[in-house]
Amino acid sequence: MPLELNQEKFIPRIETELKQFLSAQSFRSALEMKHMISYHMGWEDSGKHGKRIRPLLTLLCTGALNGDINDAMPAAISVEFLHNFTLIHDDIEDRSALRHGRETVWKRWGIAQAINAGDALFCISQLAMLELSNTLGAEIAAKAAYEFNQMSFHLTQGQYLDMAHEADENFELDTYFSIINGKTAALISFCAALGGIVTGQDNRILESISSYGKYLGMAFQMQDDYLGIWGDPNVIGKSTSTDLQTKKKTLPVLFGLKHSEDFKELWEIEDPSPGDISIMAKALEASGAKTFVSQHVAKFTNQAFDALDASFNHTQNRSTFVVALHELSEKLIQRTK
Amino acid sequence: MPLELNQEKFIPRIETELKQFLSAQSFRSALEMKHMISYHMGWEDSGKHGKRIRPLLTLLCTGALNGDINDAMPAAISVEFLHNFTLIHDDIEDRSALRHGRETVWKRWGIAQAINAGDALFCISQLAMLELSNTLGAEIAAKAAYEFNQMSFHLTQGQYLDMAHEADENFELDTYFSIINGKTAALISFCAALGGIVTGQDNRILESISSYGKYLGMAFQMQDDYLGIWGDPNVIGKSTSTDLQTKKKTLPVLFGLKHSEDFKELWEIEDPSPGDISIMAKALEASGAKTFVSQHVAKFTNQAFDALDASFNHTQNRSTFVVALHELSEKLIQRTK
Repeated sequence: MPLELNQEKFIPRIETELKQFLSAQSFRSALEMKHMISYHMGWEDSGKHGKRIRPLLTLLCTGALNGDINDAMPAAISVEFLHNFTLIHDDIEDRSALRHGRETVWKRWGIAQAINAGDALFCISQLAMLELSNTLGAEIAAKAAYEFNQMSFHLTQGQYLDMAHEADENFELDTYFSIINGKTAALISFCAALGGIVTGQDNRILESISSYGKYLGMAFQMQDDYLGIWGDPNVIGKSTSTDLQTKKKTLPVLFGLKHSEDFKELWEIEDPSPGDISIMAKALEASGAKTFVSQHVAKFTNQAFDALDASFNHTQNRSTFVVALHELSEKLIQRTK
Repeated sequence: MPLELNQEKFIPRIETELKQFLSAQSFRSALEMKHMISYHMGWEDSGKHGKRIRPLLTLLCTGALNGDINDAMPAAISVEFLHNFTLIHDDIEDRSALRHGRETVWKRWGIAQAINAGDALFCISQLAMLELSNTLGAEIAAKAAYEFNQMSFHLTQGQYLDMAHEADENFELDTYFSIINGKTAALISFCAALGGIVTGQDNRILESISSYGKYLGMAFQMQDDYLGIWGDPNVIGKSTSTDLQTKKKTLPVLFGLKHSEDFKELWEIEDPSPGDISIMAKALEASGAKTFVSQHVAKFTNQAFDALDASFNHTQNRSTFVVALHELSEKLIQRTK
């Protein structure tokens, strides 16, 4: 319940603040670029967009540490802008044509202007973060901006590795963990830690919250990999095993390629039929991949909750924010249950 | 002479600091990305690269305002990294295959990883700027980073306009000025103003130094346009009228297209011969374009020097730094003389 209440309260506010911040920027005679960004944010046409989980996480962590939500708002919208900047560039790099049922920015405006609009949105995310100077002072703004750019740099490394290993049939699990750490967990981890930065926590607490976010992000991504093969299509709302269809090198697949000659052979089938996919999923399960992934999800989930407790046990531990964080974490990781 | 002495002193230091800062960044397992950036910066192969004029401008302005060069160094290397980030992305957007005699990053590593390496370099430029926190405190770091991102945002607008008008045969001079302001002058202007930011000047001085840099950048770009048609090939080291050959829409061309039917007709010739180009240059001159551009260069040059004097007249005006700034400005603008 606290999560639902907090979502009802904060998600519309986050949306309003995002829109207002974009509107406040001077695009001079490059107004079409504003339109590109607004379109990408989901504010035109069908209006579909992401769930704004990242800024919510920042605000919940801020609240759990007794910080002022208003003061933290520039930081919250900054991470959402940043996330969307990475999506614009990732879509170009991955040649993805659709996002939220709409043409991606590069598909609609061409690669050159999409790179450029992404760069503009990256600048806007930086400007939002530096607005902390007005709410919480220059010390906190400079620290937040520094950590923000360290994290953004880490994201580019995750993206580098992901693309570099695209054609690689048999990369090490360590590489997989580096990729999901860079591509997913680093940002989630930062969003959580940001609640600590804006409330001026010491390094011990910051590290603890970062760990919570990192484990949460890792567990979430591995769970997503799991559901992409063995999820209940009625629950997750898309046909399962699309990941096997599209030959996505997720954790179960990497495990299977290493440990099962049967699966390795099946993996070579071009354009597999639904029947093939069902056999592939079974071969993967027989290889121990299902158990392996489940165990890893469980391990990282436990670590996430331990770190969550450790991060906030010095505050009123049963505050609505801490309970909401528990609920949010459960919701993200255990989407099957 | 002061310019030469300052260049001899600072350019090698800037280079060392740039290299050290890049080396100090953790690329984790994405080491190839470090190689891409190092290659782009001109530190591998032939080793050719830009003249590092922008960080030099920041350091000279810092010195002219009695600031400590060491303290300003993170800001100086930040603008050079930023400039190089924009070059990586611009080369993709403009499909340029060569820079400093080497293959461009996208040409060598592909578009996807080049976008990504550019993003990484943008993060690095931000991290460098925020290092000011350690030398000059959080207030100055946060202010510098904020203005830095406003300027970077402006650059993306210049790039947007430039690309948007690529196929446009007859755009207004206002648009031309917006483009060169965004693409060239905004960064030069910021580099100068940065010397004022790191020395804690008030807004009046900051605006004055910004104007100096803006007029300098505008005059420089228009002079470049002039030389691209009427420059002495022996002096500028490239065959003149390449701009007419490549159909670049520079200031003289825009003027000619508006005011001369003769030139407009000649402009339609596909793949013009050297003879055609010579006739085109003469038609442009007859249209009044040469005079128009010269007058504009002179006007902006005067404004630049006026603003330069106004910016530093409250300090020891004959300091070696101020004299060096005069020399640098002369050198940039009046390269024919």
